[in-house]
Amino acid sequence: VRGGTEETTTGVIRLRAMAKDGVLAYPVIAVNEARTKHMFDNQYGTGQSAVDGLLRSTNILIAGKTAVVCGYGWVGRGVASRLRGMGAAVIVCEVEPLRGLEAAMDGYQVMTVADAAKKGDIFFTATGNLNVLGKDHFGHMKDGAILANVGHFNDEIEIPALERASSSKRTIRPFVEEYRLGSRSVFLLAEGRLLNHAAAEANPAAVMDMSFANQVLAIEHLLGEPDLRPDVYPVPLQHDEDIARLKLEAMGVRIDEMTAAQRDYAGQWKAGT
Amino acid sequence: VRGGTEETTTGVIRLRAMAKDGVLAYPVIAVNEARTKHMFDNQYGTGQSAVDGLLRSTNILIAGKTAVVCGYGWVGRGVASRLRGMGAAVIVCEVEPLRGLEAAMDGYQVMTVADAAKKGDIFFTATGNLNVLGKDHFGHMKDGAILANVGHFNDEIEIPALERASSSKRTIRPFVEEYRLGSRSVFLLAEGRLLNHAAAEANPAAVMDMSFANQVLAIEHLLGEPDLRPDVYPVPLQHDEDIARLKLEAMGVRIDEMTAAQRDYAGQWKAGT
Amino acid sequence: VRGGTEETTTGVIRLRAMAKDGVLAYPVIAVNEARTKHMFDNQYGTGQSAVDGLLRSTNILIAGKTAVVCGYGWVGRGVASRLRGMGAAVIVCEVEPLRGLEAAMDGYQVMTVADAAKKGDIFFTATGNLNVLGKDHFGHMKDGAILANVGHFNDEIEIPALERASSSKRTIRPFVEEYRLGSRSVFLLAEGRLLNHAAAEANPAAVMDMSFANQVLAIEHLLGEPDLRPDVYPVPLQHDEDIARLKLEAMGVRIDEMTAAQRDYAGQWKAGT
Amino acid sequence: VRGGTEETTTGVIRLRAMAKDGVLAYPVIAVNEARTKHMFDNQYGTGQSAVDGLLRSTNILIAGKTAVVCGYGWVGRGVASRLRGMGAAVIVCEVEPLRGLEAAMDGYQVMTVADAAKKGDIFFTATGNLNVLGKDHFGHMKDGAILANVGHFNDEIEIPALERASSSKRTIRPFVEEYRLGSRSVFLLAEGRLLNHAAAEANPAAVMDMSFANQVLAIEHLLGEPDLRPDVYPVPLQHDEDIARLKLEAMGVRIDEMTAAQRDYAGQWKAGT
Repeated sequence: VRGGTEETTTGVIRLRAMAKDGVLAYPVIAVNEARTKHMFDNQYGTGQSAVDGLLRSTNILIAGKTAVVCGYGWVGRGVASRLRGMGAAVIVCEVEPLRGLEAAMDGYQVMTVADAAKKGDIFFTATGNLNVLGKDHFGHMKDGAILANVGHFNDEIEIPALERASSSKRTIRPFVEEYRLGSRSVFLLAEGRLLNHAAAEANPAAVMDMSFANQVLAIEHLLGEPDLRPDVYPVPLQHDEDIARLKLEAMGVRIDEMTAAQRDYAGQWKAGT
Repeated sequence: VRGGTEETTTGVIRLRAMAKDGVLAYPVIAVNEARTKHMFDNQYGTGQSAVDGLLRSTNILIAGKTAVVCGYGWVGRGVASRLRGMGAAVIVCEVEPLRGLEAAMDGYQVMTVADAAKKGDIFFTATGNLNVLGKDHFGHMKDGAILANVGHFNDEIEIPALERASSSKRTIRPFVEEYRLGSRSVFLLAEGRLLNHAAAEANPAAVMDMSFANQVLAIEHLLGEPDLRPDVYPVPLQHDEDIARLKLEAMGVRIDEMTAAQRDYAGQWKAGT
Repeated sequence: VRGGTEETTTGVIRLRAMAKDGVLAYPVIAVNEARTKHMFDNQYGTGQSAVDGLLRSTNILIAGKTAVVCGYGWVGRGVASRLRGMGAAVIVCEVEPLRGLEAAMDGYQVMTVADAAKKGDIFFTATGNLNVLGKDHFGHMKDGAILANVGHFNDEIEIPALERASSSKRTIRPFVEEYRLGSRSVFLLAEGRLLNHAAAEANPAAVMDMSFANQVLAIEHLLGEPDLRPDVYPVPLQHDEDIARLKLEAMGVRIDEMTAAQRDYAGQWKAGT
Repeated sequence: VRGGTEETTTGVIRLRAMAKDGVLAYPVIAVNEARTKHMFDNQYGTGQSAVDGLLRSTNILIAGKTAVVCGYGWVGRGVASRLRGMGAAVIVCEVEPLRGLEAAMDGYQVMTVADAAKKGDIFFTATGNLNVLGKDHFGHMKDGAILANVGHFNDEIEIPALERASSSKRTIRPFVEEYRLGSRSVFLLAEGRLLNHAAAEANPAAVMDMSFANQVLAIEHLLGEPDLRPDVYPVPLQHDEDIARLKLEAMGVRIDEMTAAQRDYAGQWKAGT
């Protein structure tokens, strides 16, 4: 039996691209797409660990700063929420209208990266794409701007362009490099690698537990399906509910069960006026 | 050509039940399931108008109160968020583990309705189901507890049981009825009907615009598909994106377009380390 | 015995000015300066009732709007907090550096009125001063901007200048007047009078109870001091603590008492390393 | 010339006790009482660094936890706000009714320490007093409860009582000691010393700058007043305004100046109706 699981957003996008190109060698379960994975690990986990990485690497005061979050997927919304929770005024940048609209209604300022570049004190990329902060932006940033990535690869910040634009570079604290751009400085954290992994301890065990439970159940599921052809498969829905139920129990939280009358009501269409 | 659209969560559940029972007479597009519908109208619209209905009917001070929200679907999470935003300590009750877990990680207290019944000053039902607050709960509530529904029918609060349990009933303000239960009172708002429709002006135009845009486009879509058999159909995905884009424009918010390099990157699997 | 009490911020400022000018005819207790008054009535009371007045007069969706709050005193911070709680992106304008700094660290955007005038969808004045939104600002506002006052007199918005600048004026809903400025409109609520009093039911009883308790105790105190000369006097500190204690009891909230050891520790300087 | 400054809340309380006992040897300026000190350093600084210390020492997920904050002074309110901002459900304990009332209206659950002891996953003391979490509480805590102090001395948690009650103790991570109480464990962080100093980098430079500016100006002030008798003195008001103004400038934030007409209006009592 051969098969695998994938638990990152960008990883799943790429495996789908491989499947489309006919080069995927075995079946893969997209663990990232379990709701008990991406809604929790990506959102609450990385939301917290991004703040943690920022504090461990810089010890700056977040309150009173303008923070820019590029990307309002699960990671981006977690990071935006936690930065706001620590007292930052948060700007969100997006390419998808629906997510941009959601960010606006969640009370964030929404604007283009080009406009945000002039306003931010701290920038986080969380897009899974490349050159989100790039050669057109560095020259417009405030003196002292801090750049960090919590998305995927070290492509999100266009580091080669930053290298070319700067006259010098030096390490001022572990994980903090100062680039001189004329009379101003910008600070790149963790060489544009995932800040929460590099400068903090990555996501807490109390949220990874659900991600790993998904992994284990997905592998067990694959073992029971030896004839699956190479493609990207969703996590069985029941896994999600089971894991959420176990997690609540572990947290000591009790919720209700529907009564028989309620189950019946949910499935019918005659009652009510 | 015959066909229809449905823009409530409970309505769609019931139409699906009708389709399953083979009694649906024509095709229906589930407008509620457009993300530009339920994420906005249900969440931000009803979240606000529930608070509005509460204030218009009672003029109580929300700050310092314990508010209980039954249901953490799109309506429930909107209501919970806005009550917290007005200074309430919010408790969420759920029957689905995943939603209960989400509510807990969003910082709400999560518990059973039976436990919450003793703690709440204000109760909102937002479930689409029946007897969510019922005969087992009224007797344990605090003197002065306020009961309101922003879910669907006036079934969510078990009013017949409240009538039976109380010794008297009187209207003390428009939309506010006092029920005497021994030495205590509970106040039922708007006879358990949708509070935001009864006591306020329902959801604002600035969020209904998207719901109605979905309706119009769905009807136009049905007109182009005269041979569709009776069933419940999703809103075409492109509608969602178009409506979100137009809405952002109307709000004066500008977002980014992916560059060609970014579109290419999003579809490939080789770059990055 | 002659004497009085005053329970507004602006009223106390003016009585102090009268005392300074030697024209105050009898002693006045500055009830507004009781912490159980201004911290609660002004902040939580007006914070809520400002939102209430806005919704009753306009029924706009607050989520996604940019709201500008002029003044970050007790009223202003209450209004800013509640608008944020309803999903607005909030800008604060101030003249006192310390308050401006506090607003920034509370996560608000802080800027001059001239800069904010171009960005706001909704404006609230809460300053107790005059012409805070004035002739230099109206011309730069967005089409559709809404102007409201929850500060003191109808001086805070420079209405004569708005009248002069506009080509026409009409009432479009109760409490909502549209002024045409070239091709744009701005909407003035409640003729610039206190919006929460005009369009809603003013502050809730559950916060006015503390203000009125202060009034009664202040009058009782004055009756016991028949020889007080005309001046503005503070509320006796003990009133504040008594009222807060009674209010918590009425809310059913229990707090701790210091132990004897804790009282002793609080008054000494030797323990601890 | 002899004199000093003091920049902690507890330090000032003790210096006042010394002055009262006639043992204070020289004049001291209570720098802590400058608003640019306690409102910022104590609130926003310690609020953030308490979270930082918690994450560095434990790497737990804050979202979904119940956090108990003992004390709602400037430190306590900062800590409560930031824990809520990271997704905790926060309980506040107080001995002063007014602060308890404020915490309730800020949306926190307010209860006695004895009640909170059973509910908390994480406890922070921020009182400046002793035995706030003590022998009566440890036995009722949940398995896994975490105890930390960000108030003053290591007296706030009654460690001797914890030592006596536990059967064993071991270090499981730097700054984390597990105490076994029957079949349960509680974890004491940093031996009950200031967590933000022990496990993180204390308060950020960007908030200490104001505290230190106050120190320097206070010392300069003392040098100009060589005849001051031993006592505790307030910071001159003008310092506060100057420091706030400079800080805003350093942050690049611009605020308004009152116009001449506004200054005049603020000092008179005739205009307005």
